[in-house]
Amino acid sequence: MFEPGYTPLPLSRLSQAIRPPIIVDLMSRALANPDVLSLAAGFTDNEVLPRVMIRDIVAELTREGLPEEPLQYGQNRGREGLRALSCRALAGHPGEQASGLDPEKVFITNGSQQALYLAMQALCDPGDIVLVEEPSYFVCLELLKGLRLRPVGIPCDARGGILTEGLRERLRALDAAGERSRVKAIYLVSYFCNPSSHSLGAVAKAAVAGVLSEEGFCLPVIEDAAYRDLYFEAPHPAPSILSMEAFAAFPKLYLGTYTKPFATGLKVGFGYCTHPVWLEKMLCMKGHQDFGTSHFNQAIIERVLAQGFYAEHLAGVRAHYAAKATMLNEVLEKGGLQQSGWRWERPAGGLVIWLRGPAGMHLGMESDFCARCIAAGVLYVPGDLCFAEGVPKNCARLAFGSLPPDKLRVAAERFCAVAAEFSA
Amino acid sequence: MFEPGYTPLPLSRLSQAIRPPIIVDLMSRALANPDVLSLAAGFTDNEVLPRVMIRDIVAELTREGLPEEPLQYGQNRGREGLRALSCRALAGHPGEQASGLDPEKVFITNGSQQALYLAMQALCDPGDIVLVEEPSYFVCLELLKGLRLRPVGIPCDARGGILTEGLRERLRALDAAGERSRVKAIYLVSYFCNPSSHSLGAVAKAAVAGVLSEEGFCLPVIEDAAYRDLYFEAPHPAPSILSMEAFAAFPKLYLGTYTKPFATGLKVGFGYCTHPVWLEKMLCMKGHQDFGTSHFNQAIIERVLAQGFYAEHLAGVRAHYAAKATMLNEVLEKGGLQQSGWRWERPAGGLVIWLRGPAGMHLGMESDFCARCIAAGVLYVPGDLCFAEGVPKNCARLAFGSLPPDKLRVAAERFCAVAAEFSA
Repeated sequence: MFEPGYTPLPLSRLSQAIRPPIIVDLMSRALANPDVLSLAAGFTDNEVLPRVMIRDIVAELTREGLPEEPLQYGQNRGREGLRALSCRALAGHPGEQASGLDPEKVFITNGSQQALYLAMQALCDPGDIVLVEEPSYFVCLELLKGLRLRPVGIPCDARGGILTEGLRERLRALDAAGERSRVKAIYLVSYFCNPSSHSLGAVAKAAVAGVLSEEGFCLPVIEDAAYRDLYFEAPHPAPSILSMEAFAAFPKLYLGTYTKPFATGLKVGFGYCTHPVWLEKMLCMKGHQDFGTSHFNQAIIERVLAQGFYAEHLAGVRAHYAAKATMLNEVLEKGGLQQSGWRWERPAGGLVIWLRGPAGMHLGMESDFCARCIAAGVLYVPGDLCFAEGVPKNCARLAFGSLPPDKLRVAAERFCAVAAEFSA
Repeated sequence: MFEPGYTPLPLSRLSQAIRPPIIVDLMSRALANPDVLSLAAGFTDNEVLPRVMIRDIVAELTREGLPEEPLQYGQNRGREGLRALSCRALAGHPGEQASGLDPEKVFITNGSQQALYLAMQALCDPGDIVLVEEPSYFVCLELLKGLRLRPVGIPCDARGGILTEGLRERLRALDAAGERSRVKAIYLVSYFCNPSSHSLGAVAKAAVAGVLSEEGFCLPVIEDAAYRDLYFEAPHPAPSILSMEAFAAFPKLYLGTYTKPFATGLKVGFGYCTHPVWLEKMLCMKGHQDFGTSHFNQAIIERVLAQGFYAEHLAGVRAHYAAKATMLNEVLEKGGLQQSGWRWERPAGGLVIWLRGPAGMHLGMESDFCARCIAAGVLYVPGDLCFAEGVPKNCARLAFGSLPPDKLRVAAERFCAVAAEFSA
């Protein structure tokens, strides 16, 4: 093999803008302590993976002569059966308009992440603005910056609920700055939000639509429902934007996934897009990126849904994560965090707890607190990564998805111990 | 569900540039004849899919407690084991430098298609130029245009071999036109090219490197080896660009796939990139697009390779496609195409035969010939789709991948019958 000296290469402007995920930097710092337990990783729990179910389904799918051969290429937009079943699953959520969902508006993607990427590619040019909650999904913020877009924060209360008058002010400020035409979409993580674990109620969601309408911003709305299936006690009652009259006039894209709640290794998600041209453009782009998500994995998910195994399996998954959330919550309570001024909501779904430290506390990547946690053997996601504008610095995301209960407890106790040091 | 009138949406410039694949248009025309047999589709043969092998491997992979849980998320760049085995497989090709291949330079993608897309995103800005063979892989041409890039053709002989002096002239013309700095990469489909079925010999490949060097175009070279494993009698003897001293000074990306030769439904490919910054940027972009290719499918392919099943299975696949190629070739010969001035090479690998009709014959999408073929019940890919500049019009690609032998024969006979009509 020939290894010339590394030659500088003229790279694209996209390449110049994009950065490796900050979380990778964090993980590599954590390597300094081999004993570290991660409350940062967004992985799910190996304990609840549907191994036997998938083995049995693959045994069925590898029989000869199936009408739509799963090991052969499929269509770019995804299997017809899976698209229809995705509509049926969507219609099963509380509050949804059961009729009228159209499988032709569904496209299957490599996790819902790909649909998000395609959506931004289709809508936005470099320099354009996307409105995001504060806090929002930090990978989306990085994705936007990687496409040379500008995430602009929507003011939210401490729990993550959108402040509608704050949104109005933000829109007016953008208008006053001559940026109205640069605002291309609004992105809402409206069910058990990663990171805030907050869900947008129907009234609050309608209020967002109202402000957007009143201010003349009839924007494409992207609703990320990746965690909607991962409720603990009961599904969140708010219908999606697809079924709310308040959003009737808006172009809409709803994102769902079978990866996160069911089997992360399969990487199958979907988008439901109400706007035919937007949809067509995303499909063209997907055709160039990969011609369609693994047909085999689509066939697996299709059968899981068709045979009712998905709902069955998720019942167990929900109980499992609910128990872990309860336990993490208890350890934090017993660890005395509240007494020293920390605040959080006990989540009703999802995979994370969002902590707000005492005002003025610095929990960012470069903070002493973060370094001390790594030394003490625990890793978290610094909350400032989740804000478009990079403030505040006193938040932290603790994920309870992947660690087994005993380690989860130890990790949380380590976190509390560091918090105690810093409040002393 | 609320269906407002479809509102015009301000879409990105990428959206404005991108078009649905032309082949979709062709397919939809073909729907007029339900009896049509497709020599156009690039699908593989259901007959040779490794169903039992995959069933058995999945049974192993769904056991509890495997060290790298296949149903869990993996790393963005792909499984370490699969990356190492990809190097080993690469080193096994004739002429390759066995030592020095580095798994850290491999990244696993959703088919090699995604690696191609990432490569172009990382290197090129809108308006930039990529050099391509004439003819070249038509999906790559569409992909380039969809990214607002300009494919520029490298003059080739009738068989698809690169004319080095033609390349030199093209480079000089670009330089004279002030476009030197816009030329960002050269893309070569060098093994059993889709569509020409031509392979670039070592001498010819070195000559390309020579001309590029002499003219001061030390470009990133992308070698698409998607069909390299699908030889009929013997592997093509030319080493890849990774092992050729002539390419030592060039930044290189080699593309391979496990999808096409083995199981198209799994959609697992890879790139091997010698340039650390280029590689890093592609990985960043992949992270935003999907966080990594299905970990489950990667684990399947890893095990197939590790246990030697891949080589074993491909032996049968090669014999199967060789027989179909022979048969298609015979039907074309018996159909009298040569007598009426058609020319082609019998392929030594791959999944297509590339036909050159008599000079002046028009086989394009809008031709009478194409319409007559659809009426007669056979579909082909008009060759002009495979040229950056859209000429010549007298070529056609016939794919023998998916049709079973009896239908393949009928389809080819229909094609010959239409050709006979037009030469009468």
